[in-house]
Amino acid sequence: MMPEGGGAARAEALSALRGLIHQQATRADLADLFAAAAAEAGRLLPWQQANLREMKREWVHATALPQDLVEAMSRAESLSEQAWRRLRPTNDFAGFLGFFREVVRLKREAAQAWGEKLSLAPYDALVDSFEPGMRASQIAPLFARLSAFLPGFIEKALQRRERETIVTCQGPFPEERQRWLALHLMARIGFDFHHGRLDTSHHPFCTGVPTDVRITTRYHLGDYTESMMSVLHESGHARYEQNLPRAWQDQPVGAARGSCIHESQSLLFEMQAGRSRAFLEFAAPILAEAFPEGCAHDRRALSPENLFRQLTQVKPGLIRTESDEVTSPCHILLRFKLEMGLIEGSLRPEDVPEAWDAGMRGLLGLSTLGNDRDGCLQDVHWPAGMFGYFPAYALGALIAAQLFRAVRRAHPDLMEHIRRGDFAVLDTWLRDHVWSRGSLLSCAELVEQATGSPLGTEAFEEHLERRYVQREP
Amino acid sequence: MMPEGGGAARAEALSALRGLIHQQATRADLADLFAAAAAEAGRLLPWQQANLREMKREWVHATALPQDLVEAMSRAESLSEQAWRRLRPTNDFAGFLGFFREVVRLKREAAQAWGEKLSLAPYDALVDSFEPGMRASQIAPLFARLSAFLPGFIEKALQRRERETIVTCQGPFPEERQRWLALHLMARIGFDFHHGRLDTSHHPFCTGVPTDVRITTRYHLGDYTESMMSVLHESGHARYEQNLPRAWQDQPVGAARGSCIHESQSLLFEMQAGRSRAFLEFAAPILAEAFPEGCAHDRRALSPENLFRQLTQVKPGLIRTESDEVTSPCHILLRFKLEMGLIEGSLRPEDVPEAWDAGMRGLLGLSTLGNDRDGCLQDVHWPAGMFGYFPAYALGALIAAQLFRAVRRAHPDLMEHIRRGDFAVLDTWLRDHVWSRGSLLSCAELVEQATGSPLGTEAFEEHLERRYVQREP
Repeated sequence: MMPEGGGAARAEALSALRGLIHQQATRADLADLFAAAAAEAGRLLPWQQANLREMKREWVHATALPQDLVEAMSRAESLSEQAWRRLRPTNDFAGFLGFFREVVRLKREAAQAWGEKLSLAPYDALVDSFEPGMRASQIAPLFARLSAFLPGFIEKALQRRERETIVTCQGPFPEERQRWLALHLMARIGFDFHHGRLDTSHHPFCTGVPTDVRITTRYHLGDYTESMMSVLHESGHARYEQNLPRAWQDQPVGAARGSCIHESQSLLFEMQAGRSRAFLEFAAPILAEAFPEGCAHDRRALSPENLFRQLTQVKPGLIRTESDEVTSPCHILLRFKLEMGLIEGSLRPEDVPEAWDAGMRGLLGLSTLGNDRDGCLQDVHWPAGMFGYFPAYALGALIAAQLFRAVRRAHPDLMEHIRRGDFAVLDTWLRDHVWSRGSLLSCAELVEQATGSPLGTEAFEEHLERRYVQREP
Repeated sequence: MMPEGGGAARAEALSALRGLIHQQATRADLADLFAAAAAEAGRLLPWQQANLREMKREWVHATALPQDLVEAMSRAESLSEQAWRRLRPTNDFAGFLGFFREVVRLKREAAQAWGEKLSLAPYDALVDSFEPGMRASQIAPLFARLSAFLPGFIEKALQRRERETIVTCQGPFPEERQRWLALHLMARIGFDFHHGRLDTSHHPFCTGVPTDVRITTRYHLGDYTESMMSVLHESGHARYEQNLPRAWQDQPVGAARGSCIHESQSLLFEMQAGRSRAFLEFAAPILAEAFPEGCAHDRRALSPENLFRQLTQVKPGLIRTESDEVTSPCHILLRFKLEMGLIEGSLRPEDVPEAWDAGMRGLLGLSTLGNDRDGCLQDVHWPAGMFGYFPAYALGALIAAQLFRAVRRAHPDLMEHIRRGDFAVLDTWLRDHVWSRGSLLSCAELVEQATGSPLGTEAFEEHLERRYVQREP
């Protein structure tokens, strides 16, 4: 909500704060303090050990790079992101290539340096900064199974849906009614308005501290579903933050685990729960109340059956952020393969467009030849130097499915509760098994302890089968 | 707009930032640096000298008090403000007295210490922290003249108004229409929305940095004038901030002068310009557009003549924040006299209710005997340890009148411009004579250079005479 002209002053303030944080994180006496703490590690309780582990990881990340590399990287990423904003609309990969090469070169150098300090392969060092403990060797077999499963499954889902019709309705859905709907749903699923609020922004996000969590959405007059589903998504992030353990507040062990668990919480609310028949049966009367005049020409548009059909469409497409629950992981499989190649040096920046096209054809049967704007230039991540984050989106979907299956197994009547708009059972389970753990465990440990089995793809595959082929009978 | 539960985390963050600022402001090497700078002062340009002067003043303020006094004062003020929030509603001065005594005792000690370092009397040291360079010896003769002038003038104004009728209208005035009105008026008087915005809060205020100025208002369904006038008031503060000299941005000399000049800018827009017949003739058609259905029973309510009568009512009352342009300074005269007595030691805290009653009877003919809630307990300032700020409200009114008279003398057709909704002439004059000066001059120097004469009460008295007796013929 900041006025545009405030950007420079805000950047100055943030830069000053980051500088102060960096000073603290790289204090000369920390090496001795960590050494002394390591000598006592055997006498520490698990949560204290977790604190030490998290502090040390941050310290290594903060101190591993020479100052001139940090500055060169920051400058190159800033220039590259600006160039990308200018060149993507004109589909100019050739113009962008020089910036991209520099970003990749410096990020490889940094990944190498981080990896050496952390005893990790370069790409693992990047992933580790987003999801501590996660390794390419864990990701690769999961993604290989998805690569084998998804293309055939997408075919099957598309055939299944050919028999269905959808009543579409373009409103108008007034902004203040959409906001009413968002606030109503947030309240029902347990968002704590004493410790958070909903605002409007160009792109939805979730930010803040656990006692003050801000989420945003945007409203389209002709389609309320984008706002509704993005609010469920961000509420998943928010509920995780709001329910982190207060006893460990302001300590590293009390922070949210990492990007994979975070994405799993948003996807659990948006996808696993939010697009289920049960949830939509709960939501349909609320939608009718939100839009008493919307879809007046055909009230079937707001029926649970129609909502379910509308919100579980499968449409292979080029753009990741517009992709659905089924095709979305395919976008990630491709990016994981390419970004690992870039960091390891087996893929050159100039060869990315061709590799992208080949990957998209293999996974979704779509070509991006000559269309880099909707191909390798579509995301801000790489232009901004963000390598290693993408896997979290697909891993989050796998974790969400596995956690949700575990709740259903523990509470066979879960979907009945959700159908009645009662989220207490889901809440209690998530609080006990995920939210209250903070950063005590690694992502893999957390998933295994919560669900009884290591992270796999079975729960996700079962979920897709039930929703997109059996249509949640 | 922060959710209530975020208060503790916000307080922690602010406290950490203040601690860092204090560390910087009290660095051990500053004494030597100031000494070295003083040796070069003769070679500095005026704006450099101003920078040095402002930095040194802040440094003396930051370093004058022993740490234990700072902490004791902060604790006592916090406890006292909390007690006041609890005890004011029950009119319990006796219960509050213990807290009040402690706040006064510590503030006297602090004022003594500041005064010694700054070679100022204790009360002057407090005033100096809000309006650098302002002294009780400058304030006292001005307030003495107002004390002599106002009681008789209020009588005269009340008699003059007896012949006037006012058409009142209680709306309803929908919030979104009031907000439309506020934004429209802000835009017309030159608020820069690229560098600021309008929000809603319980009490109106203005905050931020010059490139990102936030003002707030609140909306009453039955009375749009409170929001409209408070928006003009805060816009005055905002326009000052937004037009501070960019060349000196982030330097002490580039900051707003002090509380008196700041209040003069808000009162210039709200009172001098905003309640003039010319402005209300400009505003009336906009009001009609804002409230097409408001006051439908009697559209005279939105006529310029009726607006002028409505917005220039004189009503002696007990509550300062509800007082009008004419009686408002009386509230300040009383507070100035009493708070100076408290800090100098000639007035004991337990004697304040009696002194308050005597003062109110003398100035406005109203008694507060047994009604401390609406008497000495009405403001948060003293309970929160804020002594020395009150004069700024009345001095701001005097400065606003003297500046506005100077603009009218320089541009005899000023009111014609305002009637047409053209504020360029006013803007240019204020930018040249006030806004662009930052903290280059003291308040007294700025007023004298801008208007050609030292700060006096004549312009304010003339203004009141013209508006409240002659009724702006």
